[in-house]
Amino acid sequence: MKSAFFLLSLLTIGCAQDELKCTDRRCLAQMLINKEYLSPPQSENCTLLVEVPLIKYETLSVNMKELHLLSRLEAQIKWVDPGLAWNTSINPFNRVILPVDKVWTPDVSIENGQSYMEHVSHDLVVFSNGTVWHKVVINAEVNCGINLFNYPYAYDTCPVGLKSTPPHECGISIQVDGVELAETSHGDWETQQVELGKKREDRSYINIIQKIKYTNPFITLLLPTFLIMVADIVSCALPMQGGERNLFKVTLVLSFTMFLSILTNLLPGDSKCSPVIRVHFCICQVLMVISMLVSVVLTRVAQDGLVFFTYFFTRFVSLNSGDNDEKEDADAKGDISVIQYDVSEDSQMLKKIVRFLEAVDTDQKKSERHQNLADKLDRIFFWLYFLSALDTYVQ
Amino acid sequence: MKSAFFLLSLLTIGCAQDELKCTDRRCLAQMLINKEYLSPPQSENCTLLVEVPLIKYETLSVNMKELHLLSRLEAQIKWVDPGLAWNTSINPFNRVILPVDKVWTPDVSIENGQSYMEHVSHDLVVFSNGTVWHKVVINAEVNCGINLFNYPYAYDTCPVGLKSTPPHECGISIQVDGVELAETSHGDWETQQVELGKKREDRSYINIIQKIKYTNPFITLLLPTFLIMVADIVSCALPMQGGERNLFKVTLVLSFTMFLSILTNLLPGDSKCSPVIRVHFCICQVLMVISMLVSVVLTRVAQDGLVFFTYFFTRFVSLNSGDNDEKEDADAKGDISVIQYDVSEDSQMLKKIVRFLEAVDTDQKKSERHQNLADKLDRIFFWLYFLSALDTYVQ
Amino acid sequence: MKSAFFLLSLLTIGCAQDELKCTDRRCLAQMLINKEYLSPPQSENCTLLVEVPLIKYETLSVNMKELHLLSRLEAQIKWVDPGLAWNTSINPFNRVILPVDKVWTPDVSIENGQSYMEHVSHDLVVFSNGTVWHKVVINAEVNCGINLFNYPYAYDTCPVGLKSTPPHECGISIQVDGVELAETSHGDWETQQVELGKKREDRSYINIIQKIKYTNPFITLLLPTFLIMVADIVSCALPMQGGERNLFKVTLVLSFTMFLSILTNLLPGDSKCSPVIRVHFCICQVLMVISMLVSVVLTRVAQDGLVFFTYFFTRFVSLNSGDNDEKEDADAKGDISVIQYDVSEDSQMLKKIVRFLEAVDTDQKKSERHQNLADKLDRIFFWLYFLSALDTYVQ
Amino acid sequence: MKSAFFLLSLLTIGCAQDELKCTDRRCLAQMLINKEYLSPPQSENCTLLVEVPLIKYETLSVNMKELHLLSRLEAQIKWVDPGLAWNTSINPFNRVILPVDKVWTPDVSIENGQSYMEHVSHDLVVFSNGTVWHKVVINAEVNCGINLFNYPYAYDTCPVGLKSTPPHECGISIQVDGVELAETSHGDWETQQVELGKKREDRSYINIIQKIKYTNPFITLLLPTFLIMVADIVSCALPMQGGERNLFKVTLVLSFTMFLSILTNLLPGDSKCSPVIRVHFCICQVLMVISMLVSVVLTRVAQDGLVFFTYFFTRFVSLNSGDNDEKEDADAKGDISVIQYDVSEDSQMLKKIVRFLEAVDTDQKKSERHQNLADKLDRIFFWLYFLSALDTYVQ
Amino acid sequence: MKSAFFLLSLLTIGCAQDELKCTDRRCLAQMLINKEYLSPPQSENCTLLVEVPLIKYETLSVNMKELHLLSRLEAQIKWVDPGLAWNTSINPFNRVILPVDKVWTPDVSIENGQSYMEHVSHDLVVFSNGTVWHKVVINAEVNCGINLFNYPYAYDTCPVGLKSTPPHECGISIQVDGVELAETSHGDWETQQVELGKKREDRSYINIIQKIKYTNPFITLLLPTFLIMVADIVSCALPMQGGERNLFKVTLVLSFTMFLSILTNLLPGDSKCSPVIRVHFCICQVLMVISMLVSVVLTRVAQDGLVFFTYFFTRFVSLNSGDNDEKEDADAKGDISVIQYDVSEDSQMLKKIVRFLEAVDTDQKKSERHQNLADKLDRIFFWLYFLSALDTYVQ
Repeated sequence: MKSAFFLLSLLTIGCAQDELKCTDRRCLAQMLINKEYLSPPQSENCTLLVEVPLIKYETLSVNMKELHLLSRLEAQIKWVDPGLAWNTSINPFNRVILPVDKVWTPDVSIENGQSYMEHVSHDLVVFSNGTVWHKVVINAEVNCGINLFNYPYAYDTCPVGLKSTPPHECGISIQVDGVELAETSHGDWETQQVELGKKREDRSYINIIQKIKYTNPFITLLLPTFLIMVADIVSCALPMQGGERNLFKVTLVLSFTMFLSILTNLLPGDSKCSPVIRVHFCICQVLMVISMLVSVVLTRVAQDGLVFFTYFFTRFVSLNSGDNDEKEDADAKGDISVIQYDVSEDSQMLKKIVRFLEAVDTDQKKSERHQNLADKLDRIFFWLYFLSALDTYVQ
Repeated sequence: MKSAFFLLSLLTIGCAQDELKCTDRRCLAQMLINKEYLSPPQSENCTLLVEVPLIKYETLSVNMKELHLLSRLEAQIKWVDPGLAWNTSINPFNRVILPVDKVWTPDVSIENGQSYMEHVSHDLVVFSNGTVWHKVVINAEVNCGINLFNYPYAYDTCPVGLKSTPPHECGISIQVDGVELAETSHGDWETQQVELGKKREDRSYINIIQKIKYTNPFITLLLPTFLIMVADIVSCALPMQGGERNLFKVTLVLSFTMFLSILTNLLPGDSKCSPVIRVHFCICQVLMVISMLVSVVLTRVAQDGLVFFTYFFTRFVSLNSGDNDEKEDADAKGDISVIQYDVSEDSQMLKKIVRFLEAVDTDQKKSERHQNLADKLDRIFFWLYFLSALDTYVQ
Repeated sequence: MKSAFFLLSLLTIGCAQDELKCTDRRCLAQMLINKEYLSPPQSENCTLLVEVPLIKYETLSVNMKELHLLSRLEAQIKWVDPGLAWNTSINPFNRVILPVDKVWTPDVSIENGQSYMEHVSHDLVVFSNGTVWHKVVINAEVNCGINLFNYPYAYDTCPVGLKSTPPHECGISIQVDGVELAETSHGDWETQQVELGKKREDRSYINIIQKIKYTNPFITLLLPTFLIMVADIVSCALPMQGGERNLFKVTLVLSFTMFLSILTNLLPGDSKCSPVIRVHFCICQVLMVISMLVSVVLTRVAQDGLVFFTYFFTRFVSLNSGDNDEKEDADAKGDISVIQYDVSEDSQMLKKIVRFLEAVDTDQKKSERHQNLADKLDRIFFWLYFLSALDTYVQ
Repeated sequence: MKSAFFLLSLLTIGCAQDELKCTDRRCLAQMLINKEYLSPPQSENCTLLVEVPLIKYETLSVNMKELHLLSRLEAQIKWVDPGLAWNTSINPFNRVILPVDKVWTPDVSIENGQSYMEHVSHDLVVFSNGTVWHKVVINAEVNCGINLFNYPYAYDTCPVGLKSTPPHECGISIQVDGVELAETSHGDWETQQVELGKKREDRSYINIIQKIKYTNPFITLLLPTFLIMVADIVSCALPMQGGERNLFKVTLVLSFTMFLSILTNLLPGDSKCSPVIRVHFCICQVLMVISMLVSVVLTRVAQDGLVFFTYFFTRFVSLNSGDNDEKEDADAKGDISVIQYDVSEDSQMLKKIVRFLEAVDTDQKKSERHQNLADKLDRIFFWLYFLSALDTYVQ
Repeated sequence: MKSAFFLLSLLTIGCAQDELKCTDRRCLAQMLINKEYLSPPQSENCTLLVEVPLIKYETLSVNMKELHLLSRLEAQIKWVDPGLAWNTSINPFNRVILPVDKVWTPDVSIENGQSYMEHVSHDLVVFSNGTVWHKVVINAEVNCGINLFNYPYAYDTCPVGLKSTPPHECGISIQVDGVELAETSHGDWETQQVELGKKREDRSYINIIQKIKYTNPFITLLLPTFLIMVADIVSCALPMQGGERNLFKVTLVLSFTMFLSILTNLLPGDSKCSPVIRVHFCICQVLMVISMLVSVVLTRVAQDGLVFFTYFFTRFVSLNSGDNDEKEDADAKGDISVIQYDVSEDSQMLKKIVRFLEAVDTDQKKSERHQNLADKLDRIFFWLYFLSALDTYVQ
């Protein structure tokens, strides 16, 4: 095309001006298109200034796993392309619309992350002095190490850097003049403010101030775990006998475990400082398991006393006397059928009955002693558990 | 190409008209294509009117998390491109088909959201006066703050704005003449009506009136939670002894918790007014946990009376007399074996039996007293619970 | 390019024919490419007939939520492009291969849904008379309101309409001559037959006859729910005492609830007639909950008789005599320790023992009466439940 | 461009040769590019032979639901394009690199499935005789009805057909000379061997021999279900009394059900022969439910004997004598309070005691008879269950 | 275009130089663009050296199922294109910016995996000697058989090979001069170091040294399973009677099974050496099931002694004496009602009472003997279980 112009120039010698007179603006547009200026305007210092009068910023979503923001920046951009200027004395129009893919357009992108620029419209406006006005949308995935230490309560500033060429290299220099917040909230995060950051030579920063809306994670994460913990502590009020407490506790523990494995997907990832809630949940889980195990062991104590534990001890001490243990235990219960006094039959009968009842009573008292022991241990453990749980939550 | 025409013009001096005579319509089409009019038609005031005789609107889906609609708008569009007009006296055809990528086409998009325009067909029809008829499909993601306060029952109007250039800027001006509903329902939402909104200078609004089909969320969300709540209330009819009620209640509570964590994904997001159902579920959960904990504590009361609670109190009052507590308790049960009256052996035996039975009876009565106390507290709590649950549902 | 031909024509005056003689077929191909006929062939009535000798139809998947089919139609298409014809006396070849993006090709699409056309090969065959043979694949998402009332058993016909221009408009007219089924089954649906539908002026229909393969949904949906229902009915054989039945039932109910919330995602969406299985599951769930609650209440009846229910009644009748209730209850159990007859001590002792046993016996009988009452109510309810469950399944 | 050559030819009459002399290879490349040979080379019989010296085959994944392979074929291809040949006496170079989008390239695709061809490099090598060497990657989704009858143990051959034009049609003819396996395993499947299949006139087959790695499905699918089955069988050792066995069994059954509904997503789809494991799981589930129900019913038998079942029978026989049933039952237990003998008070007392104990004893014996009956039935059922379970697994 | 230059050359005979004098740099850029040098620069040995001064490497994610890395390599590249050089005496500029799609650019890709190259900017810089500077991003999916034998603790080196043409073939030769780590961690993996690998003739290797951050898998995978195992071992302290221990164990086992089926998705895939954790979990599961089954069987032993097991044995020995078994059992309990001594009625009464009590006592002792047997077996099994569990964890 261009070559055709050269050819044209050669054929029409003397036609110094390569600007034809047009009667309408479309003719002018076609003429500018035919120039095929797809290379960037190149100044002396090899840098082109691209002004950004206004950026409308919007955070689409916050990825707490990968710690980046999905943002949408709708930017007005403005630059001067001398090749697209025309002489208004020849062509008396002050602006013209050109298709965006027939002229050069700058590529605005993000420094700290990945971005993809889209043209808002397929047409842009060129003024007679070569100034080009355009609107672009930058979809960006901004890396931002948000501080999530106090996870369901988080508040942090994320800088979004627009890439700009350093002074002595070839490229475009972005100059942002204003920022505006388009929409404040999407999902669990609320963008509270956007402001222009401190300008540096080679880039322009926009600071995004964000805050988590903690209602949702509170309801989904904290409330159920807190309720399960409270239920676990109160379950110590359940009587130890009958297995009720153990089943209650194992149900709670397994629910908590299942719950945690679901929550892990919702919890934020490990940035430099891992969120404290993750450690907290681990401690809660371990505490609950210990509490359950203590409850299990105390159930045995309530039934057999400390025999179960001393058994292993005595076993080691006197391996040969181990078998007698059960026998003595059995004898102690009073073998009513073998006892024969030479008194009247009725008395004997009554005595047998009394002995039977005495044996029952002895068993009961022994059992009561075991239970009292277990109760005492239970109370001691309850206070330890309660205090450590309290400590965990206060922490 | 154009340049070739110039060259042609220069070579064939005197050929003032640049419209050649064609014998068939395809020749005409090729001639129009060769004009390469890819820049927009540009009127004096720099605005081009694009008429939209009819839009067929269809809501594809409603995203209640992000609060936007996925819509499909099939629009007929019509505009005048003077560059594509021809002289019917030279070329006696009144319309011609052109490939859509060889001429300029307007870009119709959505004001309040993101959209992507597609051409329905690869060919468009041009009339001899330059009027172009075309069909496009706009796939739009419309932001719409639907009011979801009464979530499973929601009914709201969403405006869809077609982007149009303000009067004194360069661009296209959209004028919508008619709207039609293509299909009424997809998924859980039903589009009841579409109508043209009040026209403003710079944009055209279409109002979409939508209603939720509440059968589905009712069955999935409300029915199970309601049934669980009812089961929890009725479970107060279970006898407190034997641990049955506690296990029943803990199963219900944990099911409810699990259920909620599944439902949270189905629940709509937080718009300006968060759906009341979310708060409702929280209250239900807390109520159920409290009910369970009361049941747990009353189980202890039914067994030991208020000793468990007064224990800690008395402990603080007399730390030194703590150990006596259990001893007295044990003594009260009547130690039948140590009592020795100087009466006949038979009588003694009988007395022993009676004492044993009396001790059993005393225990039973004590236990009954505890149970009556627990029952009374249970009834009081049942009414409190029932009323607050009722209150929650009425609310 | 075309212009260059014009220029050529001008320079080589007298060369009326614009068809050059080629020595090989590629030269001919390049010549046809150079014609750049990217506009559609345009007949007098502005309609172009596109013949479709054969369509190979295949259903890729059936989306029962959104009620559409994902289909793949491999179509041979054939049309006449006069601009691509050549004189076989000059170029003695009867066919030539051309790249598909250098000539115009029709765009075949679906009337009732969305579709995307792909070229099977990058080359197409042109015959000397301008007839073009080509193969395309149409990936379509066909909207089809499949009747899913009897869900796991469904059988319906879906029409797939190929878009065709109405007689008096400009465009292409599709004429389908044959349909063939490529593969019968993907996933849960089996395509049983495809046939050409009744032809209308402006579109060609293909009727797809489909049937669900009910083995899979039967195993996943119906069998488990049926088994749970049967288990729930048979669980009435469990003895009411000991809490076993209640725990059994609550486990079943909660499993059913969880199961349903999983199944809801598998269940088809709401078309005009919602599948009856959805209602059926709801009724089953409600029935099971009622059955569970009745079981809970009867447990109380078995323990305390109707006191629990009459309590509230009598409470309202005589609020002041409420406290006496328990006392009388306690007195009825025979307070053996306070009774003092002036007979011999032995007799007294024996009497005490008898009184104790009588009290136990009275309690037992009272308890038996309560249990008999509960059993009777249980049997009545069992039959009601069994019949309604049966009714639900027969329905 | 071509036209410009014609023009050039016309202007430079006498320049018969249209090959210019180049001093470097890039000039030659540019000259070849300018020929714009984007139409395929066309031989006399309208078929072009494309040789494939080597294909490196790799199975990316096996979709057992839809029964297709995702494959990646990296193929070297080689064909002769006479239009790209040059005279080495004029241009003394034996090869040149050309951009792939400036010359025609063949489109290699898959017969039995869908495929997408990619160029490995953007440049290809052309030799002076017109031979073109290139490398392409074919990403294919090959339909293959893998035999999954013995699912976790599967071994089958899948043919992958490369599309080739039948002899008398226009197109390309693929000739594969060698196949090689790039990587043997991805995921659960291992490609054991690839070999060239029997050649047919119109297509080349590659046979892929694959085998499942059964460790993973064994651990995920078979082991847990086997363990649950074993646990269910062994649970028959649990004593029937106390509800323990029923709760144990219902937990197992519901876990199995939940487990199956998760597994269904992992199980392969229904090909012609559905995997036997699906039927097997169904049978296991039904067996477990029956075993649970039998256990439930036997619990009742152990408590009440066959009264529960004969009740309904006798009910129908004598509807009027139904109420007496319970009364007699109650009377049988010996109403100790109403009996008055005229013997000494002490004897009376003793008799009362004995009667009470006798009543307890009678109850016990009755209960024992019931239990023995239940035990016997239980043993019979255990063997039936054990044998059918064994049969299912052996099968 | 090129042709137009030829035409131009022909028309302007004598213009030997094809470099025009430009007054500004854009004119120079347009002139270079017009050369249309889209074919690669071709040296004598048909290889072009592409220097890569610096690569910024970043691992985006590690897919442990498919064993590949998703990487992002931001590379500066530099090559010489003689066709783009200009004479600085004619055009006194030392560098110029050109659009990236108007000149040839090399295609940098990955040897061991799949990659997709993107241009960082749409413009590149050309120096007067033809040196081109550019920046590209290579998104790569690198195959890397990471050693995951000790899964939650893994540390390995992955080589990333940049594809380079072997010496005697046509193509580009990549020479990497420096590597730098952009960001160290994403998700669960931390890239510790990147370094240039040993250079080979035909490719350049970058070695990526990575380490897993084991906190996350430890909390999600190991901690819960460890806690469940500990709970299962400690549950042996639960008393065998009352069904508590069995229910506790079955709940644990099923939770573990469910947990495993969730974890399977998180576990890494089978590389050459399958992670030992998978086998470990299997063994744990089998151990837990065995422990549960032993507990179930011991429950029966505690109730009935070894009768249950010897029953089947004796059954086979004497099938005819089977029925007597129960009878004798029943007789042993002392049938107090049938015994008639000819002593005084009172004595008889007392004897009856004593017999009753003796029978109860006999039952108790028998039961105690069974329990002692079960306890002993339980202790033996506990030690076996404990040691094998310990062994598994130590292993």
